[in-house]
Amino acid sequence: MAWDKLSLREFIEKVADKNPTPGGGAVSALVCALAAALNEMVSNLTLARNDYSDWHAEMERTLENMKEIRLKMLEHIELDIKAFDEVIEAYKMPKETEEQKEARKTAIQEALKKAAKVPYEVCRYSREVLRFAEIVARWGNINAISDAVSAAELAFGAFQAAKANVLINLNSIKDEQFVEYMKHELRTLTGEAEGALKAVKEVAKERGKLGL
Amino acid sequence: MAWDKLSLREFIEKVADKNPTPGGGAVSALVCALAAALNEMVSNLTLARNDYSDWHAEMERTLENMKEIRLKMLEHIELDIKAFDEVIEAYKMPKETEEQKEARKTAIQEALKKAAKVPYEVCRYSREVLRFAEIVARWGNINAISDAVSAAELAFGAFQAAKANVLINLNSIKDEQFVEYMKHELRTLTGEAEGALKAVKEVAKERGKLGL
Repeated sequence: MAWDKLSLREFIEKVADKNPTPGGGAVSALVCALAAALNEMVSNLTLARNDYSDWHAEMERTLENMKEIRLKMLEHIELDIKAFDEVIEAYKMPKETEEQKEARKTAIQEALKKAAKVPYEVCRYSREVLRFAEIVARWGNINAISDAVSAAELAFGAFQAAKANVLINLNSIKDEQFVEYMKHELRTLTGEAEGALKAVKEVAKERGKLGL
Repeated sequence: MAWDKLSLREFIEKVADKNPTPGGGAVSALVCALAAALNEMVSNLTLARNDYSDWHAEMERTLENMKEIRLKMLEHIELDIKAFDEVIEAYKMPKETEEQKEARKTAIQEALKKAAKVPYEVCRYSREVLRFAEIVARWGNINAISDAVSAAELAFGAFQAAKANVLINLNSIKDEQFVEYMKHELRTLTGEAEGALKAVKEVAKERGKLGL
């Protein structure tokens, strides 16, 4: 199915229904795409203003990167759903003979690794969106600073949600080296994502007077 | 325009383009709706399992509340866009005579209050989604715990993004009592949202083994 062709209302109904897909992984990819789009909007609103011309090159770079991420994350909605379905299919494989049991076990492990890697990519891209949110919050059109903050906060939500979807798959993966590698990477990304969010919050307070 | 009838791809393109709407406020309403839908999915996956029958009544209650919020937040996408447009229209009013200046000033202030109230409602409903995420994370189908965590993390992102959109409007509102009241409410809601998120994280770690 072309998930990105569904209307907002239809997609949300499909999230809500009793089918496990689209679930948290797919939704976090969508939210990452939305956050990237907000960074693009702030860049566009900055490019429209000549008094920000010192920052136009940065905004062009942001546009280019965020468009790529937005399109990739839209594709990830479907990738996440497929990866989940493959895990389910693997679990359904016959397990009567020893050979079948072995083949099933291998298929499950492979499917789980794939199902971990898709939301892991969402984590990586969400961290990237956060980095660019810091740029547009700091140097973008001041009138759109709440949009830059929104991009950062939503990308961080997508990051955290995607991370939970990596971790739940890691719980069933027997390849310890793979699990340790992924956890190590997630720890690094978490530090970077938290750092970028903190920076955006500071800019929001100082430049945007958005403190409580 | 019926924004919720746009496809995911079309909607995201409209976020990204140089038009300031839909912006951070509208996107946060959408993400709140998505998070509510994830709570519904976890409830549905729990109602499908007889071994969770002790919690079926809670899940039915969650379904009812989350469906209401999901539909309301979908409407808020349009409300947020309209509220922003009304602010812009008010600023465009003539200001040649003293009378016109006065009328314009009043219209701007009224439009700003409305533009603050719409994302404020998104904050309130996101806090509500977080509360129910805690319920489904704690008592829902364990296989869907990463979806419950996703609901919480995304609702928190929506909460924070919507808050920035309230605050940017408050910056231009002259009615100090209104501003103080809204900030007071936001502080309370922030405490509640943070508390619910923290609780979900603990459940995720203990019950779901989703620690890093």
